Amino acid sequence: MRALRVGDGATSLVDIARPEPRGEAIVRVTLSGICNTDLEIAKGYAGFRGTIGHEFVGIVEDPGGGAIAPGTRVVGEINAGCGACARCTAGDPRHCAARTVLGIVGRDGAHADLVRLPAGNLVRVPDAVPDRAAVFVEPLAAACGVLERAPLAGDAAAQVAVVGDGKLGLLCAMVLAAQGARPVLVGKHAAKLARAARRGIAAETVAQATRRGRAFDVVVEASGAASGFSLALDLLRPQGTLVLKSTFHGDAPIDAARVVVEEITVVGSRCERFAPALDLLARGAVDVADLISEIASLDHAEAALRRAAEPGVLKVLLATAP
Amino acid sequence: MRALRVGDGATSLVDIARPEPRGEAIVRVTLSGICNTDLEIAKGYAGFRGTIGHEFVGIVEDPGGGAIAPGTRVVGEINAGCGACARCTAGDPRHCAARTVLGIVGRDGAHADLVRLPAGNLVRVPDAVPDRAAVFVEPLAAACGVLERAPLAGDAAAQVAVVGDGKLGLLCAMVLAAQGARPVLVGKHAAKLARAARRGIAAETVAQATRRGRAFDVVVEASGAASGFSLALDLLRPQGTLVLKSTFHGDAPIDAARVVVEEITVVGSRCERFAPALDLLARGAVDVADLISEIASLDHAEAALRRAAEPGVLKVLLATAP
Repeated sequence: MRALRVGDGATSLVDIARPEPRGEAIVRVTLSGICNTDLEIAKGYAGFRGTIGHEFVGIVEDPGGGAIAPGTRVVGEINAGCGACARCTAGDPRHCAARTVLGIVGRDGAHADLVRLPAGNLVRVPDAVPDRAAVFVEPLAAACGVLERAPLAGDAAAQVAVVGDGKLGLLCAMVLAAQGARPVLVGKHAAKLARAARRGIAAETVAQATRRGRAFDVVVEASGAASGFSLALDLLRPQGTLVLKSTFHGDAPIDAARVVVEEITVVGSRCERFAPALDLLARGAVDVADLISEIASLDHAEAALRRAAEPGVLKVLLATAP
Repeated sequence: MRALRVGDGATSLVDIARPEPRGEAIVRVTLSGICNTDLEIAKGYAGFRGTIGHEFVGIVEDPGGGAIAPGTRVVGEINAGCGACARCTAGDPRHCAARTVLGIVGRDGAHADLVRLPAGNLVRVPDAVPDRAAVFVEPLAAACGVLERAPLAGDAAAQVAVVGDGKLGLLCAMVLAAQGARPVLVGKHAAKLARAARRGIAAETVAQATRRGRAFDVVVEASGAASGFSLALDLLRPQGTLVLKSTFHGDAPIDAARVVVEEITVVGSRCERFAPALDLLARGAVDVADLISEIASLDHAEAALRRAAEPGVLKVLLATAP
């Protein structure tokens, strides 16, 4: 089968043997999404070797002992715990110290014809959600994570900014708006900000947002750049909450004295469960159609990866069908 | 009167006019304490010009319209708000955007014979607390702030580490222990760690603490160095809380991806009200006697400032009496 693999400093589409089930499920991938994390991994981040890709939708081929029937359309949660430690037995394999992560840590990913995952990681996709939307469930679940970590839920009066007008920022802003908050998306690119405005989400340039003074109770950093961190602090009021979503590689400089003196709370937020994200898609509360820049054949995965790294490009999808 | 003043890149003891009350109280300083923040300000941090010093105990000379009688022994909270903004009218001048801060922002400090503060900032010192203990109330109130920001209170089972075996770290560990927690003080210096052990507080070297793995639910960063930040993250379990107390100048590098993936919470914590700290001193719950390295005459303030910057030196106090 085809697989987009990282190793020895290069990323190549290669032909490899299909995965053995080894007690897990096998899913035939329909669409997979290229994430900024894929680009980081392709640069050597975290020393991963193997097939990359962790955003996908596909059809169950072998349920691997799970309850989901062959032929079911599914997405897959990306963390697979050891199953034995205190974290796993408490039902939270996301923080298992020995976990593997699809296409990121110790487990082949989804930019391939077939992908293997524990049966318990698979989640059926509602019929109302087309493949081109379902493939966004992982980044959308990451956006849903903001609400788990910030004191926001249902508080329409809270002043919330999302820094970053890329895919993640827009998804975060959409999820917040769907939950009754009134986020302001802050970015540098008029075309990207216009995507927010078309959805009724307030959008401001960095200069406009900065001119408000330190007006925001909560700022979500979703820019994917170290500079977004200090901008986020500049927008935040004393005793406010900064939600970190970006997982860029390397250290970000933080003005620790400001965090102390202004009693800022910084919370890291990662991916939540998929079910709430699928529900948002099924209800039509979040529209991801115009976040797709391109759908390429898996045959052209190497070029698609380069394209995804170009400025201004949003989501690039890989399709296994010709 | 004598005053230790910063300006034009130099810090000098000079003779200046006594302060006009201007509606505020005048206190004759008995003892003042040299803080690491003083050393940072003397290097030019924050562009402050004027008399430095924000830790003091003294005798009220002019109550400035307040209810505290002349002759009363007092300490003074260091933030003075504008009195008119939403923060001030809500009773929290500490975050007033227009506030002055004793010896730090726009207000002459306490390394002098006399100091001026709003009457409302003064707090009477209980008779049971000698001057040499009362002068520690400001850093002790900073240590008390940890409990306001970390989910710890009364949880003896929580694994808590304090990074930094200097004055602030030891004060934080003592306050935590006085409140029923069982902190582990982590540092580099055997002599300083022994001070913790003498108080019944567990003390470990960096190597010992690191060998535990990521075992701590809460880590308090009180080392005053950027390196303490990454050590603190190395000690913290996933979904743990990092309490920042250090206010060193400049940016600390933060591994933002780790904060996100492990869903760490970072909280900045500054100085709390003085009354609980005075109460700890009055009850004898915290012993600060062996934190004093030296008591110098204010006449020798310049040399004392240099001495306070030497490695291994803890608190240097300045006495106005001969």
